[in-house]
Amino acid sequence: MTAERQIYLDNAATTAVLPEVVQAMLPYFTQEYGNPSSLYELGQRARSAISDARERIAAHIGARGQDIYFTSGGTEADNWALKETAFAYRDKGKHIITTSTEHHAISHSCEWLEKRGFEVTYLPVDTDGLVSPAGFEAAIRDDTTLASIIFANNEIGTIQPVRELAAIARARGVVFHTDAVQAIGHVAIDVEELGVDLLAASGHKFHGPKGVGFLYIRKGIKTRSFLDGGAQERKRRASTENVPSIIGMAKALDIAMANFDARVAHETALRDRLIERVLNEVEHVRLNGHRDQRLGGNANFSFEFVEGESLLLSLEQKGILGSSGSACASGSLDPSHVLLAIGLPHEIAHGSLRLTIGEETTVEDIDYTVEAIKQVVGQLRQMSPLYEDFVAGKKPLSAVR
Amino acid sequence: MTAERQIYLDNAATTAVLPEVVQAMLPYFTQEYGNPSSLYELGQRARSAISDARERIAAHIGARGQDIYFTSGGTEADNWALKETAFAYRDKGKHIITTSTEHHAISHSCEWLEKRGFEVTYLPVDTDGLVSPAGFEAAIRDDTTLASIIFANNEIGTIQPVRELAAIARARGVVFHTDAVQAIGHVAIDVEELGVDLLAASGHKFHGPKGVGFLYIRKGIKTRSFLDGGAQERKRRASTENVPSIIGMAKALDIAMANFDARVAHETALRDRLIERVLNEVEHVRLNGHRDQRLGGNANFSFEFVEGESLLLSLEQKGILGSSGSACASGSLDPSHVLLAIGLPHEIAHGSLRLTIGEETTVEDIDYTVEAIKQVVGQLRQMSPLYEDFVAGKKPLSAVR
Repeated sequence: MTAERQIYLDNAATTAVLPEVVQAMLPYFTQEYGNPSSLYELGQRARSAISDARERIAAHIGARGQDIYFTSGGTEADNWALKETAFAYRDKGKHIITTSTEHHAISHSCEWLEKRGFEVTYLPVDTDGLVSPAGFEAAIRDDTTLASIIFANNEIGTIQPVRELAAIARARGVVFHTDAVQAIGHVAIDVEELGVDLLAASGHKFHGPKGVGFLYIRKGIKTRSFLDGGAQERKRRASTENVPSIIGMAKALDIAMANFDARVAHETALRDRLIERVLNEVEHVRLNGHRDQRLGGNANFSFEFVEGESLLLSLEQKGILGSSGSACASGSLDPSHVLLAIGLPHEIAHGSLRLTIGEETTVEDIDYTVEAIKQVVGQLRQMSPLYEDFVAGKKPLSAVR
Repeated sequence: MTAERQIYLDNAATTAVLPEVVQAMLPYFTQEYGNPSSLYELGQRARSAISDARERIAAHIGARGQDIYFTSGGTEADNWALKETAFAYRDKGKHIITTSTEHHAISHSCEWLEKRGFEVTYLPVDTDGLVSPAGFEAAIRDDTTLASIIFANNEIGTIQPVRELAAIARARGVVFHTDAVQAIGHVAIDVEELGVDLLAASGHKFHGPKGVGFLYIRKGIKTRSFLDGGAQERKRRASTENVPSIIGMAKALDIAMANFDARVAHETALRDRLIERVLNEVEHVRLNGHRDQRLGGNANFSFEFVEGESLLLSLEQKGILGSSGSACASGSLDPSHVLLAIGLPHEIAHGSLRLTIGEETTVEDIDYTVEAIKQVVGQLRQMSPLYEDFVAGKKPLSAVR
């Protein structure tokens, strides 16, 4: 099963922690292990280290350090932003607006709120996965308190017009949250320029460790604690701080922002090469997500007459690691809700392939991958009765482009 | 400020991660970095590793692997156990029983529930910090659904009669949760023998990493997810698994249980030496917590006529790191709710000192610490107007022992 080479094209699922990040974390396991709440120097040094990490992370997104709250990851940050903010404003209203293409950390938190008396509007998206600002504005009601719109989609990579959407929310007095888990480190983010009120991030999508993330909370936004207990994080997020991982996340973001332009340009060039070659050299394929307004490293294709899981397994045999959609939804037999939302029929939504490029990806990797896709898709189609029927002219093509 | 030697006697606040634990974690940062939800081998190896960690942890507490759910720490596990279990049984009743000496992760979760229509009974404790089983039984009502009683107190070390309490709960159809954050790795725990339904633990109290813990959920106990999102942890706890930290926590518990008897005996002997010497050689001092039914490494004293923070600072100057109570409550000017619950008056609750011994602590460390305490307490009392008054016979002693 093991191929000669391994090409990791699933950087949206998770990333390898950089060696420099591990080095930055190491002292905090065995030597600087103090509890940041402890008053002696060993504890206060840990406290200073996370305070420094907080300031550096804040600076990368144009925020103030005191508005960054560390969490156990993007999911906790999203749960916090949705559940506790909705409750904090419930005297004002119980209507929330989100989209039909959110990560499950958002959509399932919305369902949790619906079970508790809140009403949620799920905005549709167009075939590129974009939300309409006019549609968003029209959905706002007098009792709308909170909107949550994903910054960059985790499956199809489409980047929403966040600044425009946040401006509409602000003008109407609606708190604006964005799940930026896929965006941070990959898209320039300035919370002041964008005007977002809440922003969720996760460390392991930009070569930081798993199990750590943060929630940005603009000063003045009401939200109560999601984790109750000790007085950590200015009494807003209990639990002993995950010192090494916080240090690691800050280091990873430092690195990501230091080489931001060159890295994003590299990834975008490879993405474009991958997209162009696949669209030109494979028949009956569709690019999912907006052609340009998308994450630098993201390509998502639907191949007709090909079953997604077979495609993935065949590619893995050639050493190429991709995914059929969100890693968080793996194991589910349902087609992706994101692909359905952009209008793909069920049978095509099942045949999609997400390839997410990283800094270490090379032109040779991309060319090898394109050749592998051509070969594998061809082989799988030869075995497909649907494709046979299609070639024999028996069935119309359910093409969507 | 830096003393020649450093004696870390705050193992209840946090512990140093063992080098073997870090070694076990390291491959999962940079090489075995796959997302456990990913279907390719890199992901499935990570999935296997956490599955193996789960089985090993379960075996150490007499549980089945499938009943262990990884969390970001003890606080999340406690929040989950309280908030979501109470809601899962709310059709049956809305009464919860806990004690007046819980960690804030429990007591503040109870307050959260009180704001949402639940009623909470806070059981008193005796002067040793023990809950009365008869008092617990008497507090159970027809609408009681959940009880939460701390296994071993984080401040005074008192170990509750968990088996007896859990048996009462079970006989009355009440779900029994225990916050075992301080107990696991330090007290023998078998969930079957004890009969507990839910049990919360944290990795960093037994030389594992911070930012990881688990909740044991007995099969058949209803509780919904606390973190909503992806399908991780058998759909009960969303968020990409913190693979390295889970591996580290399992390794740390393996080590803690492998040398359990010798380590606990060592710590208990040193604890007893510390307690006996302080009680015999310092005047006007009280041991807080039960004399024997307490954590092997825990000593907690109240020194009359001494202010706790001054005592801590003076001891730190001699290289001794202790605490005045829970690290999670540091920064608060209020006296410990635990010390008030065992009947200490405010002025004495302010003068307490918690010293928590670890495997690396030596007899010499203890003797050095006793000498330092004698010296520092003496000096501080010389500067205390209250002590002056007392010696002059002007004021009665507010002694509690």
